[in-house]
Amino acid sequence: MYHSINPTDLDFFESLLGDRCKYDRDTCVAYNHDHTEDLQFTPSVVLFPKSTQEVSDILAYCHQCNIPVTPAGARTGLSGGCLPIYGGVMLSSEKLNRILEIDEKNAQVITEPGVITEVLQDAVKAKGLFYPPDPASKGSCFIGGNIAENSGGPKAVKYGVTKDWVLNLEIVLADGTIMWTGANVVKNATGYNLTQLVVGSEGTLAFVTKIVLRLIAHPTQTLLMLVPFYDALHACQAVSSIFNAGITPSGLEFMEHNALKWSQAFSQDYSIEVKDEHAAHLLIEVDGFDSEQLMKECEIILSVLENYETDEILFAESEAQKNTLWGLRRKVGEAVKAQSVYKEEDTVVPRFALPQLLETVKNIGGKYGFESVCYGHAGDGNLHVNIIKGNLSDLFWNEELPIAIRELFTEVIKLGGTISGEHGIGLVQKPYMDLAFSPSGMELMRGIKHVFDPKGILNPGKIF
Amino acid sequence: MYHSINPTDLDFFESLLGDRCKYDRDTCVAYNHDHTEDLQFTPSVVLFPKSTQEVSDILAYCHQCNIPVTPAGARTGLSGGCLPIYGGVMLSSEKLNRILEIDEKNAQVITEPGVITEVLQDAVKAKGLFYPPDPASKGSCFIGGNIAENSGGPKAVKYGVTKDWVLNLEIVLADGTIMWTGANVVKNATGYNLTQLVVGSEGTLAFVTKIVLRLIAHPTQTLLMLVPFYDALHACQAVSSIFNAGITPSGLEFMEHNALKWSQAFSQDYSIEVKDEHAAHLLIEVDGFDSEQLMKECEIILSVLENYETDEILFAESEAQKNTLWGLRRKVGEAVKAQSVYKEEDTVVPRFALPQLLETVKNIGGKYGFESVCYGHAGDGNLHVNIIKGNLSDLFWNEELPIAIRELFTEVIKLGGTISGEHGIGLVQKPYMDLAFSPSGMELMRGIKHVFDPKGILNPGKIF
Repeated sequence: MYHSINPTDLDFFESLLGDRCKYDRDTCVAYNHDHTEDLQFTPSVVLFPKSTQEVSDILAYCHQCNIPVTPAGARTGLSGGCLPIYGGVMLSSEKLNRILEIDEKNAQVITEPGVITEVLQDAVKAKGLFYPPDPASKGSCFIGGNIAENSGGPKAVKYGVTKDWVLNLEIVLADGTIMWTGANVVKNATGYNLTQLVVGSEGTLAFVTKIVLRLIAHPTQTLLMLVPFYDALHACQAVSSIFNAGITPSGLEFMEHNALKWSQAFSQDYSIEVKDEHAAHLLIEVDGFDSEQLMKECEIILSVLENYETDEILFAESEAQKNTLWGLRRKVGEAVKAQSVYKEEDTVVPRFALPQLLETVKNIGGKYGFESVCYGHAGDGNLHVNIIKGNLSDLFWNEELPIAIRELFTEVIKLGGTISGEHGIGLVQKPYMDLAFSPSGMELMRGIKHVFDPKGILNPGKIF
Repeated sequence: MYHSINPTDLDFFESLLGDRCKYDRDTCVAYNHDHTEDLQFTPSVVLFPKSTQEVSDILAYCHQCNIPVTPAGARTGLSGGCLPIYGGVMLSSEKLNRILEIDEKNAQVITEPGVITEVLQDAVKAKGLFYPPDPASKGSCFIGGNIAENSGGPKAVKYGVTKDWVLNLEIVLADGTIMWTGANVVKNATGYNLTQLVVGSEGTLAFVTKIVLRLIAHPTQTLLMLVPFYDALHACQAVSSIFNAGITPSGLEFMEHNALKWSQAFSQDYSIEVKDEHAAHLLIEVDGFDSEQLMKECEIILSVLENYETDEILFAESEAQKNTLWGLRRKVGEAVKAQSVYKEEDTVVPRFALPQLLETVKNIGGKYGFESVCYGHAGDGNLHVNIIKGNLSDLFWNEELPIAIRELFTEVIKLGGTISGEHGIGLVQKPYMDLAFSPSGMELMRGIKHVFDPKGILNPGKIF
């Protein structure tokens, strides 16, 4: 169905990009995976455009020749969104890596997609400005990938996810057409919201070449506490109680016992005592501009926590200790990966349903016979369920587990939730989309895909 | 091209709705306008469904028969979005007016579209919860209309516009299909963002029958000040300076001299002294949970304002005085309408470009010979430009003014802005869409429209 890349195609790409067109075996193999399980798909050629015009020229050519194009950022995704499952062109944003303008006067930044999220955050922070979304991979992921997957992170609980910060996008359509989706304004009631349609579309609708983000003044203060619970369900329940007390923390993270233990082992950092009887921890951060105000907020949180059985609460006393605590939280994912083959389900439910979700996960695990380590952004009702392969058979893993996952997602949707909070659908969650959307919904999405990319060359085999 | 309604159609609608199907002359004339200028288009029949199923049955019938359907809420819109320009069915949400559930535990509300925005706000406030978007017409407009137009209001500067609060929508497609667009969660990376595509689509993609909104804890305190400036441009400049000082007010409104004077006359409320030398005012509100904190924020604002020449600043000392000040601001639109025939342009630019926008408006007014009264949500860069007909000829109004408006919008777009911040495109801004979107952008939007509504029966003649 798709055209296989031949020497003529490679000549064209080389004439356009010179040594930024790579098709040697080593490069193609190096680009055949992201952070999703152990999946590998090798592209025929990896292209590194440096300008919107080059992206446009590449796409116009591929469109004409019917060559599949898989957009890729830093390839840190967890749903296989940038795996070139039909081979063809991998279109990398690595060389589209300039921050074009930090507009302090309007509190906006214009950037190319290949900038590491943390680099972008640091650059605007140097001007006193704040770009809040901070996926766990912020030190390596690209802002373009965050746009593609509508990434979240701990700060989402207070500040929202990537979509909430995107004002305008320069995109290149499948046929090479260059256009802007909106305007550089915080309010816009002009036509359909093409910007929000492209955010989270996982590279299936267009290739993003420029991004306009809004920013706010950077908070100057944070307070951070780690709260050990004897009962994981109590930890889940406390989450809603904190909000109901009128507090919106800037981080409200849940970690099961094993999540924190494994992260300690992975990081070789045992500075925090995690007792056997600590079933779960909440990591709670508040931020702002006034330390007195934050102390007041912490007092309210503490008064809420008095209603639950907790062990001694650890207040981070220094920046170093804050970094330790956040580091342990951020490394859970890698720690689980180091421990065993695993599958991660990015469940999300209304916040108050979190205890029910955790129980459901454990019940289904009991029924099917798998263990799981759960952690995530509890304040958003977003629980990462890591199913551990351990000694389970390949047969179970490949045949039975998908049935168990389907049962889990069915329950998630009954709780008012959905099958991905921040990782996207990509390749690996496709089989469950029928749970989240009616046939009509799927038909609308397929129709939209066809409007943007009638030949289906952009990131084929994803979402649908 | 469309089927004209005949007695058989009326019989069908009557069999379905009984006396909630109205086609008497008085009703049809009563529903032939919204708040947009003096435009009138009379529907053949006005239908008042009470359930999603009734909406579905109506749309399925109209789809089959090719009858144009114009969704309507409280008809307070300012861009003609609910005018039935091809006649046919007006589909009213007036009887879909129940708040279905206030979910305190998850801080969400599920409502039907025909609930008055302020009624909804008061209902959730009674539970300590806050739905911030507050268009000037909040006392009469419907939440469904707010969804259709992606409405803003003064609080948008801190809390965002309608789209930022919508989690999930139950919609009925043109062919009668009932579906949900998403899930009741604050994070969602599952497929394309159909929810955000429907928000702001002005009833051209689907009829919204249920709305899930997120809520937050209701602030307990506000402080409000009215700041008179001798130079309107200084007032515009002060807006950015306040943000740059790290303050995000919960309201930051700009009013030209005449806007406030006319509102005083219209309201017969002269409790505030507006001197001739007051070129413009800023109305600045901060909100929160702690009065000391708000006082600190006000002090920072005052220190910023010291850099500008202002007259004595009025601090509202009571709830009554706050209501007076906000009342004067909210009534500006009606006051202008009472003064003269007018046209309102809903310009929006990046915040720092506000002084340039104001100068541009006045320069173009000087060049073409019209007067304007400007006011609006300065913190968002959203300036409502009211062009006053006064003694201008009909010939000028109908022939020359559109050229002047086109020139204004061209400049707005050069400043990085767009042609509607919160009123929508509807009928009256259609002629300028080519300024905001490239032909490719328009083609994408037309394609999306066709996917949702292939026969074009839903709100025909709007946006495109």
